[in-house]
Order: sequence, then C-alpha cells, then structure tokens
Amino acid sequence: MSAAVSLPLERELAVVCVSGGMDSAVTAAIAADRNRLAFLHASYGQRTASKERDCFHRLADHMRVERRLEITIPALALIGGSSLTDESVPIRHGAPEPGVVPATYVPFRNANILAAAVSWAEAIAAHAVFYGAVWADSSGYPDCRPEFYRAFESAVRAGTRPEARIGVVTPVIHMRKAEIVRRGMELGVPFEWTWSCYESWREACGECESCLLRRRGFAEAGVVDPIHYRAPVKP
Amino acid sequence: MSAAVSLPLERELAVVCVSGGMDSAVTAAIAADRNRLAFLHASYGQRTASKERDCFHRLADHMRVERRLEITIPALALIGGSSLTDESVPIRHGAPEPGVVPATYVPFRNANILAAAVSWAEAIAAHAVFYGAVWADSSGYPDCRPEFYRAFESAVRAGTRPEARIGVVTPVIHMRKAEIVRRGMELGVPFEWTWSCYESWREACGECESCLLRRRGFAEAGVVDPIHYRAPVKP
Repeated sequence: MSAAVSLPLERELAVVCVSGGMDSAVTAAIAADRNRLAFLHASYGQRTASKERDCFHRLADHMRVERRLEITIPALALIGGSSLTDESVPIRHGAPEPGVVPATYVPFRNANILAAAVSWAEAIAAHAVFYGAVWADSSGYPDCRPEFYRAFESAVRAGTRPEARIGVVTPVIHMRKAEIVRRGMELGVPFEWTWSCYESWREACGECESCLLRRRGFAEAGVVDPIHYRAPVKP
Repeated sequence: MSAAVSLPLERELAVVCVSGGMDSAVTAAIAADRNRLAFLHASYGQRTASKERDCFHRLADHMRVERRLEITIPALALIGGSSLTDESVPIRHGAPEPGVVPATYVPFRNANILAAAVSWAEAIAAHAVFYGAVWADSSGYPDCRPEFYRAFESAVRAGTRPEARIGVVTPVIHMRKAEIVRRGMELGVPFEWTWSCYESWREACGECESCLLRRRGFAEAGVVDPIHYRAPVKP
C-alpha cells in the first residue's frame, strides 16, 4: 500500500452579490478565503448603476473572478417608491434619522437580488450566496436586518432542490463601518474601486447618507479613504 | 345627534400573482371575496409568456381589476437551467415521475416573482400577496412546497417596513386539481381564458405534464374543460 497522500479539497463555489460598494467588496474578500467565487451585479434602475458596474468589473479583475453575471431587475424601477430609482425624488443629504426608514429605501430590494442570486447558485451548483448587508451601522433598511437573512435562508432551503443546500451568508452584517474598513485593509480590498455615493456625479458627493456613513467609518478606522469627494469634511 | 350609520369597511388591497393558468385564476377568485385586487404578471423568458399575458388581461377584464402590473424578470432566462426558458431543451411529454424534479423547473422562480410582488405590495400599501402554488397535485417543484411559503412570509415580515405587515397567502396549495376545478366552477372562473400548456402552440398540446395534470383534474371533477387540445385524451 502506498502512503496516504493528503489531497487538497477542491474549494466550493459561492455566488457573491457585488454592488460595487465597500461592504460587498469586503464581503467578497472574506468569501475568497474558502471559496471559488462567482460575482453577480444587479441593476434595478438605481442612478448609480454604471458607476457600480465599473467598480464591479475592476474588483472582479483584481480578484481574478472569471464567472460574472450582470442582471437587470426592471420591476423595481417600475414599482418605484424610492429616491434611488426615481430621478424626480431628490437624494436627501445628511445623516440617517434613527428609527426612520429613509426615502432611499427600495421596497424589499434585497429579496429581489437574493432571489436571482439563489436561482443562479442553484443553476451553477454553488453552495452559498454571500451578501454584504450591514445592520449595525446602517441606514436602517428593513431588508438589512439579520432576521431577514435567517428567514430567507430557510426559504432557500425549502424552495430549492434538496441536494442544492445553499446557504445565505452575511459576514459583515454585525460589523460597524470602521471594522469593515479595517478588515478590508487587512485583506487588501482596493477601496479606490468602490462606489458608495447615492449620486452619480464624477466625484462622490460626500454628503448623502451613504457617503457620510463611509466617511465616518474611514475616519474612525484611522484610514485615509482613497476616493475623492466633492464636498469637504464638515468641521 | 344623527343616528349611527354602519358604514361598510373599505376592503383591503391585495396583490395576486396571476400567471394566466387555472390555479392562479381560482386563487384570484378566492382572494376577491374579501379584498380589492391588484394583478401582477411576470414574464421570465417562458415560451408561453404572450399566451399567458392574454389570459391575464382577459381574467382582469372579467373580474374588473383595474390595477395591473406586467413585469419582466430577465435574469431567469439568462440563468437558464430549465426547459421552460431554454428553447433548445424540448418539453418532455408525459406524467411527472414521483420524487424527481422535472426539467421544466425554473430554479427558485417563485421566489423571484414573489419578491417583486412583495415590493409592489409594499409600495402600494397592500396587505397580502396571493400566490396560486399547488403542492398536493403538482410536478413536485421545490418552490411550490408549503414550507417555502411559510419561510418566505417570515422573510417578508422581517424585511419590509414594520407597518407593512404583508401576508403571503396560498389558498389552493393543499387542493388537488379536481378540487381547484370544482372551486373555480362555484366561483365562476372563466376557465376558457386560462392557459396551462408548456408549449405555445395555437391549441394546448394536451400531452405535457401541465396539460396532463389539468386534464386529469377536469376529468376527476366531472367538468368539461372548455379549452381545445391538439392531442386527444389517451385511452
């Protein structure tokens, strides 16, 4: 008998929903530790879709992810109800108000993106869908709650083929933004190729909710944010 | 003081996912008993989409439903993995095999449709989404299981605004096809304007899984199916 040889196990395939923002970029870097990756981007009528897709491909190139799927979810723009998808509703500038769901909330958006990601995962035999939702330090969107992802995972287990066994994984959901920045720095995430702003100007506005959360995160982490902002830091 | 007048309570608004098939038509008739209705149809690249949309509008006209939304879910056709959305995979004719998920299964399709329906329900302040899934007497698609809808409803409660309180209602899920036919007859469902066949020929093929389940249901109920079939009933 020959000596037992320990063969490296082939790493399992996972779908990562990559928006082009910093949270999903860090989520992708975390997922890469133990998985082969497939990246999904969803355009749902958000004004920043082309900025996001550019960051999506730069991150995929950087991480050498070949398998990429760009989808559109036209129903969300048709349904409306959000300043992100309705150009006639201005983006509110300023910090989120505690306990108030902001006008940027797109009704049940994350479920629409996740459902498509799970369909893809089932079709390509991936064992997980990674999603960069953040609850601890966020705008308070209901579809960013940890309970939502737990319930959605139960729906996935019940609603896909028995052998599919697809998990829904949200590794940054309980992290504060500063922690996400620090983890991304450790993992070599190219933050210069992420877009967080709700506006689609050449430079990030620096004043919308999403920019404010990002800037506070970098400041708290003591890391220089490599992207440029139109508005200076408020004193 | 004037005498107290008992005003009729305004009926609540509900979204019904209407495919154009018989199960969702009966579901709509059941929902109409206690709700004002809004109809949603989803095209996801299925070969029968235009037949279905025609039935969708005829049923909506018949039931005097003004509020209608037709959406497309292009991701499902892009992802593939099903003979319903991939013209190169032929539709298998014959009865479903017990315990086998058939090639007509579109991975996690119902979650994609439901997610969009819930987004619409949240945007228009509807209190429920009705879905005509059938498990008792069906092709065995995993996303038709009762557990899937229970888990999805939990995801809806967790993932929408607290005040939304949207239920997911599947009134025919435990009914056999014959029972659905009988219930539809009682409620005056115009079965002549429903399309169940997986093919998009002028007449229903009469031999695909979906036609066979429908024909058996009408036969068991002792009701004449008002639509025409290309293939005669097998002896």
